[in-house]
This record gives sequence, structure tokens and C-alpha cells, in this order.
Amino acid sequence: MRLGLDVGGTKTDAVAVDDAGRIVGRVRVPTGWGPDAVARTVLEAVDRLVVEASVPRTDIRSVGVGMPGQVEPGTTRVVHAVNLGVEELDLAAAVAPQLGVPVRVENDVKAAALGAYALHSADGWGGGSGSMAYLNLGTGIAAGIVSGGELWRGGRGTAGEVGHISIDPNGPECRCGQRGCIEALAGGGAIAERWGRPGALPVRDVFDAADAGDPEARVLRAGLARGVAAAVRVLVLTADVDAVVLGGGVTALGPRLMADVGAELTASAATSPFMRSLRLDGRVQPLPAGSPAAALGAALIGVAHDTEEAFAHG
Amino acid sequence: MRLGLDVGGTKTDAVAVDDAGRIVGRVRVPTGWGPDAVARTVLEAVDRLVVEASVPRTDIRSVGVGMPGQVEPGTTRVVHAVNLGVEELDLAAAVAPQLGVPVRVENDVKAAALGAYALHSADGWGGGSGSMAYLNLGTGIAAGIVSGGELWRGGRGTAGEVGHISIDPNGPECRCGQRGCIEALAGGGAIAERWGRPGALPVRDVFDAADAGDPEARVLRAGLARGVAAAVRVLVLTADVDAVVLGGGVTALGPRLMADVGAELTASAATSPFMRSLRLDGRVQPLPAGSPAAALGAALIGVAHDTEEAFAHG
Repeated sequence: MRLGLDVGGTKTDAVAVDDAGRIVGRVRVPTGWGPDAVARTVLEAVDRLVVEASVPRTDIRSVGVGMPGQVEPGTTRVVHAVNLGVEELDLAAAVAPQLGVPVRVENDVKAAALGAYALHSADGWGGGSGSMAYLNLGTGIAAGIVSGGELWRGGRGTAGEVGHISIDPNGPECRCGQRGCIEALAGGGAIAERWGRPGALPVRDVFDAADAGDPEARVLRAGLARGVAAAVRVLVLTADVDAVVLGGGVTALGPRLMADVGAELTASAATSPFMRSLRLDGRVQPLPAGSPAAALGAALIGVAHDTEEAFAHG
Repeated sequence: MRLGLDVGGTKTDAVAVDDAGRIVGRVRVPTGWGPDAVARTVLEAVDRLVVEASVPRTDIRSVGVGMPGQVEPGTTRVVHAVNLGVEELDLAAAVAPQLGVPVRVENDVKAAALGAYALHSADGWGGGSGSMAYLNLGTGIAAGIVSGGELWRGGRGTAGEVGHISIDPNGPECRCGQRGCIEALAGGGAIAERWGRPGALPVRDVFDAADAGDPEARVLRAGLARGVAAAVRVLVLTADVDAVVLGGGVTALGPRLMADVGAELTASAATSPFMRSLRLDGRVQPLPAGSPAAALGAALIGVAHDTEEAFAHG
């Protein structure tokens, strides 16, 4: 049995995965604030799985944790996890002594990419031989690329940072200092900041206001579709992934978001036989609401290198 | 001994590579026009290597051929090799009977990427464990991505097609039908077409005219640097390659091109600590003039899957 945890800003999603890759237990616990509380959250989530999902402690072979923020390649050190109040934390050092099994840590978007691949590879992406990008639409925008079941890691930890590719020299300023970045157009944080009105779900407010005819909201909403469509094009034209799976907080907009993105992809391909031949619209799909992809992916971190036998993903 | 051929529009570059990956012979022959003549060119290049480089025929284990145009994945069929007058050609079917050894065919940019990686991996890119993109600046713009010595193939043959990523919605029209594509700004063909004056090397004429103060030439020259810099950013932010190696006809401009691209990367990072942290300027390097990268890479096609023992690249 392998446990996987997705540590989010408000809650931590945890699953137990059997040796066939099936999820056999799932719990959610509130996430603490700051390094000590985050480490306690991880321990609590494991305890809850042991009790509520009847996972015997002696059956646990590893614990994988997906964390927002940067994870230094090859280490279990997380830095700049701003949403969690964590400037720096070696998570394995903090929890492995109590857990007594290997603890692995990965960036949450990369973990979600692994999990989304595992969930979907049975659905016709080549049964594990195909490739996929998971595009996370949250406060920021980043992607994880998976091919043949393995994450594309790249050299220095920036693989999938498509949010900071500029697609318009006259576009809005990005928090990174460039102009017209995909994230400046389509990031939930950038949209909320430009919208500038209070509300629990600013991007949803923007969609509603655009539907009601507000011209500023229409511009922001069009920019979101433009940015997401550009990210899809970048991922297909650079990495030639078979599918782009959308996840993250902004995908709570559901069909309204997907319709906008699909329309943008179709419109921008109207003048280009080459772009039409890529059939981008058909390659984009949302992660279902409540999907355990990120926690499942966390459980799968490093598993391919653990075992000689193939680890079948259900 | 393995032979590798880079079939170009005017000449074919051919090398013999020993089992340690060293180039032990090299010849160049003029390329014929049309499918039959291209097949004869391949046979002639092999004959010339046998004679001039003293390669015993019985020592030849395979012949790899890099071709402009699309090579259908998993086949030796080339389609749309417009520069060669080839609409369709199964090259292995045409030459393997005479050669009596396995014949492999790959797109020339992808072959050059493999060869550039082999030539440079000894220079500190992790000794074969690092990653690299080869960015071909020719009539069009395309890249090949290599990681750990293996080409990133992607799902449908469009991996590395960064030339058709739009970076400016108000940019020039691209032959693909979109606007502001990297290739529309930086492709040798697009620049020659917009320059519109006769000349053997239109891009060099544009550089000279820009130096002489011609305003139209300055716009075109600035667009070339913008497009190349954008391609470098896309490759690093999506695939996180350790290095981007520039090759192709436009790199004949040498230090003038590199200085423009370096200045553009530096200027665009001036406002962005994030982009500065990527140190893109230091990751870009040109392939030396006359480099045998493409022919060497053609010799290496499929070699990793042939042999259990590691094939050392000199």
C-alpha cells in the first residue's frame, strides 16, 4: 500500500493506493499554517487513513506528498510555499522518523500530472505509452508533462512553466516582470487583481459580469480563454502531447470555461489548415470535479524506480 | 561501423561512425532532384564513403538518413520534402536491397538534434544525462529536443514545432495562416519574402542594410532576434532544456546573429528577476560552421535500441 497526499492551501487530500494502483481509501483534513503545522497535517492525514480506511500501518510502503511551491530536484525540501506559510521545509526530515517509511515530495502540479495520467491512460491514451500535459489553472499557471508514465523533469525545475511565456508584447504586465505572459492573461490571481472587486470567487464573478454585458469583464474573460488556448498550443507544438488535461481552481467554472477555450481554439484555427490538422479542441479535457489526481499522483512518485515489476495503474 | 547521411537541398553530407561514436570518415556529394535521384544520391554517398574513407562494406551495420520533410513515425516514408522534389518516398524500400543493412530515416532537424547532443554532451551537459534543444533556423523554424541521449518524439510528430507558436497577435501573417508566429518573424523564408529584393542570401542582405540604417531592414532584423529569443524561452520554459543549440542556414550570420539574440534575451529579462534567474543568454550557443551534427545524428538513429551495451558518443 502506498499513501499519497495533496497538500493544498485549505485542505489536504489523502489516498491509499494498493499495489494494482487502485485507490482503496480517501480522507480530507484541514491544512495547517506554517512549517510545523504542515508537517503535523501530513502525520494527521496518515493517521486518519490508517483508521478510517483500515490501512494497516505495516502495509504502508511509502508516503508521497504533493506540495505547492518549489521542490528542489532530487530532494524533499520545499521552498516558497507561500500559500502554506512555508518559506522552507524539509518535509521528509520532519515526518519520516514518525512514519518509518520512505517519504517523497514533489511539486503539486507535477504530482497531479502523474495522477491525471494514471487515471486517464486506461481511456485510450495508448495504455501508458502516450503522453499528456496537465495544465493547472489556479492563482498561477503551470503544467506537468508525462510521457510513458514518467514525468518530464527537465534540467533545472522549470519544465512546464508555460505561464511565463509571453504571447503579446502589448499585453498586461505580469507579476514576473514581463508583459503579456499567459499567466498575466489567464492566471486566477492576475484576473482577480485586474478585476479588483471583492468576492470569494473573482473569476466566477468575472464570468457572470461578462454574461451581464460588463465590458471590462468581457475583456478579462476573453483574455482567460486566449491564455489557456495559447498554453494548449505551446504544449502541443513543443512537446506534442496527445492530450491536455485542465485542472486547478479556475476549472470549477466547468463547462463555461471549456466552452470559451474550445471556441478560442476553433476561432484561432479558422485561418490555419496546419492548426486545424492538430485538432487541439478535441485534445483538451477537464479533470472531473473532486478528482483525486493530485493525491494519487503523489502516491506514485518514484514508484517506477522502486520496483522491477510494472506497477499497473487502475 | 554506422553510416549517417544528411540529405540537404543542394548537398548530402555523409559520415562513417565507429562503435565508439567517433567520426572516422566524411564525404559530401551533390543531392539529386526527385525521388529516384535522391535514392541514387544515398547510394552514391555510401559508395564514396566506402572508397574515400576506406570503410569495408562488410563492416557497415546500418545506414541512417536525415531528410527534410515529414517522416511518418515508425516508418522510413518521407512525405512533402519540397526542397528535394519529393512528394513521397519510402527511402528504405528504395535503397535497402542494394545496401543489405538496416536503413533508418528521420526528419533532418531531429537527426541534427541527436548529433548536436552527441557532439556536445562531453562538454558538460551532464555527460549524456542532460537535455538539449536543437533549434534550426532555416527557411522555416523547428526544434528537436533530446534528453539523456534520446529524442523526445511526442505523440503525432509535431514535437519541436515551435515555429508556429504565435508571440504577437498583431505580428506579420505566417504562411501557416496564423499571425505573429515565431517563424513569421524569424524564418529565413518569411524574412526573404518580406524583404522582397533579389539576392543569394537575403537574411545577410537584411543585416547589412540594417547596419547601413535602412529602416525596413532594421524592423526585419529586430524581428529575427525577437523570434529566436522567443523560441529559446518557449523551449526552456516548456521542456527545461539545459542548452539551446542554434543551427541551420541562418546561423551562417555567425556572431552578428548571436549578438542580436543575446541582446534581445538580456533586454527582455531586464524587467524580470524570474527570467534573469533562467540565465537564458548563457544557455544559447551556435553549432560551429561545417559541423557534422546532422549526419552524425542520422548515424545514431535507433542505435540506442539496437545494442544492450552503451554506445559511447565521442
